[in-house]
Amino acid sequence: MELKEILKGIQPVDEDWIEKAKARTAQLVMPPRALGRLHEISERLCGIQQTLEPSMEGKAVLVMAGDHGVVEEGVSAFPQEVTGQMVRVFLGDGAGISVLARHAGAEVWIADMGIIPDIDPGSIKGGERLWACKVARGTANLAKGPAMTRQEAEKAVVTGFQMATGLFRKGISVLGTGDMGIGNTTPSAVIGAVIARMDPVEMVGPGTGINSKGLQRKLEAVRQGIEVNIPDPGDGLDVLSKVGGFEIGGIAGCVLAGAYHGHPVVIDGFISTAGALVAHALCPDITGYLFAGHCSKEPGHRIMLNYLGLDPILDLEMRLGEGTGAVLAMGIMQGAVRIFREMLTFEQASVSAKD
Amino acid sequence: MELKEILKGIQPVDEDWIEKAKARTAQLVMPPRALGRLHEISERLCGIQQTLEPSMEGKAVLVMAGDHGVVEEGVSAFPQEVTGQMVRVFLGDGAGISVLARHAGAEVWIADMGIIPDIDPGSIKGGERLWACKVARGTANLAKGPAMTRQEAEKAVVTGFQMATGLFRKGISVLGTGDMGIGNTTPSAVIGAVIARMDPVEMVGPGTGINSKGLQRKLEAVRQGIEVNIPDPGDGLDVLSKVGGFEIGGIAGCVLAGAYHGHPVVIDGFISTAGALVAHALCPDITGYLFAGHCSKEPGHRIMLNYLGLDPILDLEMRLGEGTGAVLAMGIMQGAVRIFREMLTFEQASVSAKD
Repeated sequence: MELKEILKGIQPVDEDWIEKAKARTAQLVMPPRALGRLHEISERLCGIQQTLEPSMEGKAVLVMAGDHGVVEEGVSAFPQEVTGQMVRVFLGDGAGISVLARHAGAEVWIADMGIIPDIDPGSIKGGERLWACKVARGTANLAKGPAMTRQEAEKAVVTGFQMATGLFRKGISVLGTGDMGIGNTTPSAVIGAVIARMDPVEMVGPGTGINSKGLQRKLEAVRQGIEVNIPDPGDGLDVLSKVGGFEIGGIAGCVLAGAYHGHPVVIDGFISTAGALVAHALCPDITGYLFAGHCSKEPGHRIMLNYLGLDPILDLEMRLGEGTGAVLAMGIMQGAVRIFREMLTFEQASVSAKD
Repeated sequence: MELKEILKGIQPVDEDWIEKAKARTAQLVMPPRALGRLHEISERLCGIQQTLEPSMEGKAVLVMAGDHGVVEEGVSAFPQEVTGQMVRVFLGDGAGISVLARHAGAEVWIADMGIIPDIDPGSIKGGERLWACKVARGTANLAKGPAMTRQEAEKAVVTGFQMATGLFRKGISVLGTGDMGIGNTTPSAVIGAVIARMDPVEMVGPGTGINSKGLQRKLEAVRQGIEVNIPDPGDGLDVLSKVGGFEIGGIAGCVLAGAYHGHPVVIDGFISTAGALVAHALCPDITGYLFAGHCSKEPGHRIMLNYLGLDPILDLEMRLGEGTGAVLAMGIMQGAVRIFREMLTFEQASVSAKD
């Protein structure tokens, strides 16, 4: 499938179903909308799923991994080999995302969108949940020129779309996005600065925990990335190709897939939201299908979410990525759905209404 | 047991266990403390439970119900009979707290601390989860004089302590607090204003949804309650007796019981936090055992939490009470515990540490 066709196939969320859902909420045995954001969540799920019986059954998180040429600028606190090492850890059951996905009842799927080492899914325990679909072995250094070609950018997005589509066909109906890639807060900061039209200083944060000298190098790399590449904020593929990453493109593809197929997508933190910004630049109608799982401690994240008009479900100073914030929020979303479906109405409960 | 003995039996949380827990968190395969508040939650549970294997097994919420004489001032959007009607609804499975407690895997227990009607637990389905322990049939109007006697206030606190103690003996180890009582944001606002030493205007909000005229009456009732009674902020029982409620005293008792027996207590919103303020005035060491489940939409709630030095886990514009915010937060706490117990260390995962 080509990107053009994907974009043509996306419709805004059905507002009629949201209105019907609001009418049901109004009958439930409590003061008007007394469970606040829970109602907004369940009603939007009704709109996306076109039903008054919304469901959070069939949950998965897709962790997109990629390496980044910009690490040669000294922008990360961890060595680049950690990207591949962590992908192996994700296949077991002891990574952060493994634990919190298990807690949420969500499957974990991993995609090698472009890490440097080769990991053969057939040779490793848990490999059946790893998709090897490298666009290339890491991006080029965005501080010196484009991170990838436009063709590679499109390939990353379409690959993400196809993987998410595959999960939906397997019965997944709520998809979380996750990321792994040493250095990937740097391209995400550039994407945020370009698309949300912010000064880089607002978008650059400590990532995995870089010191103040590293932070200066990172800010410099972000500025250079913009100066050297002059990405066009109105053209998502241009931004992704010049200053993005393969896993960020894959996440953009997941976001488009949710909107295309009519399934909710729960984005995680800073990197996932950079992917959502790329998807939004390609097709603004995606936002109705998106839930922001949490607000990251990375300072630029809130700015990105505001740009997209998304209010995060959790705000717990998390900054791990991997999809951890997305799956943790799924428990809250499930609670919202249960309230919508299982709470009695005033009439059923024989309780007096408001004076 | 007398209140004096209870207060003598409370020790601050063991900081040594918290330090040991922090040392374990530092070994987990992620950037330092990258899951933010989740670490603070699991480490504090280690301190409370004096273990490096913290647990969220054995969850319950105790919903304290009471009626309020101050409703005659026109401070609530709902008629007073709703208190008793809702207690009956809680015994079924379709109230907000029933649904969210089921989602959290928490038992629901209800206490008639002082509602006006009599509900015979033996005559009603689900009645085995209702404790009839009325202190009196509703409080007196706090805008005209003391809401209850000092003896009644002590009885409410000790009764709450005993009920929570009973639950701990049954195997409950994590207790949420909840409330039901038409009009009870008014005494809670007075308690907040007195103990946190705030202007009443900061503490009075719409509650279940009163209109602007009602809001003026409510503010007036709060001011009168302070002027007429002159409660002593340094004396928790004096505040509770003059401007409190029976269910608020019961909640204070639950909070004291958690600290006394070394179990975490998850408080809910505005009314539960008023109960925690009373408990804090009686014994400041309680705060280490407390988790604030959420920040209510009721504007004074954040001020109360700040006074107690508690950072809420959720902030979802909820304002239902019943314990809904407490049980919803238990899912996040459970996730925090699973991270602490199930995540691999760098060494176990064979991942390179920070540069």
